Amino acid sequence: MPALLDAIDKRFACRHFIAGQAPTETELALLREAGRLAPSAFGLEPWRFITVTDAAGRAAIAHACFDQPAAATAPAFIVVVALVDDLDPDADYVRQRFAAEARGGDTATINAQYRAFYKPDAIAAWACGQCNFAAAHILLQAAHLGLGSCPIGGYDETALRAALKLDRGETPALVIALGHCAEAQPARLRKPAG
Amino acid sequence: MPALLDAIDKRFACRHFIAGQAPTETELALLREAGRLAPSAFGLEPWRFITVTDAAGRAAIAHACFDQPAAATAPAFIVVVALVDDLDPDADYVRQRFAAEARGGDTATINAQYRAFYKPDAIAAWACGQCNFAAAHILLQAAHLGLGSCPIGGYDETALRAALKLDRGETPALVIALGHCAEAQPARLRKPAG
Repeated sequence: MPALLDAIDKRFACRHFIAGQAPTETELALLREAGRLAPSAFGLEPWRFITVTDAAGRAAIAHACFDQPAAATAPAFIVVVALVDDLDPDADYVRQRFAAEARGGDTATINAQYRAFYKPDAIAAWACGQCNFAAAHILLQAAHLGLGSCPIGGYDETALRAALKLDRGETPALVIALGHCAEAQPARLRKPAG
Repeated sequence: MPALLDAIDKRFACRHFIAGQAPTETELALLREAGRLAPSAFGLEPWRFITVTDAAGRAAIAHACFDQPAAATAPAFIVVVALVDDLDPDADYVRQRFAAEARGGDTATINAQYRAFYKPDAIAAWACGQCNFAAAHILLQAAHLGLGSCPIGGYDETALRAALKLDRGETPALVIALGHCAEAQPARLRKPAG
């Protein structure tokens, strides 16, 4: 067993994908499964994953991402979307997640903790931050499958919302461009270990 | 090669650790290395990792985490701390990261993009969200090494800041309890695939 997780070592932000070599449906399903198994605070899993592989949908996403090369060349996207309105302490979504988290037991404690934590003005940013757990899983799973990926946080939110037909109560958290990378892994840029 | 990354399959939130079986220094270094290699927006890596293994330090962290069992029994912690003041567009930290990111090239474009993005009131929450990329790497690397882990987001921030002697310009993002898990992996609780 290599000491450092191989997928961590291999993952990098791919800027150009090979045309016409899309991830398979099986691979895309595994990427979403990796995201689904990510941890989240209060067990809320405040995300959903939108897969886009059709030409018109991809073009709309690429355009929302200012046609940056990774987006313009990607044969597939998984967009991680943060559930925001669902996180209201009185929402059915929260009630259902806490009931599951309590495994049939009492939900009073987690409910009280969550109500003390919840701030309406802060919840969207928090939910987007939670989505990064799922996104990190998807990116590492892609590396594990030999796929290239690029996380894209810079987009025109209005255009991206329109492309994805997002509900008002949701917020795009991260666009993940996916495919087979047309570039070799570059030398890694990181600040030194502290 | 198993289709789903093995570390994703094995990771779970361990609630009780075995007393006296701390991760080795080598293991802790690998966990920090996994975090160091995580992706971040603008290549800013807005984090640092504080490792705590001494009894007094652990007790202070556990207390800040309301003595919940995972914290009270953990023989080690890595706390992911968000760099907040360093993210000011005029900070030396940002200048240095962008110079590295540009690999000797022009930093005008990334600088302009970041200045358009930066909102002083939103940056702390954003930085904490970015830290979740590093945290996810650390949690998966722990699973890869056969270690148990528990991400803990519920703490008394004042007490945790004091325990870690944090600078005013930093914010704790996540406490990760680490050790050898005293429990078997429970049945996974997740909402169904969408």
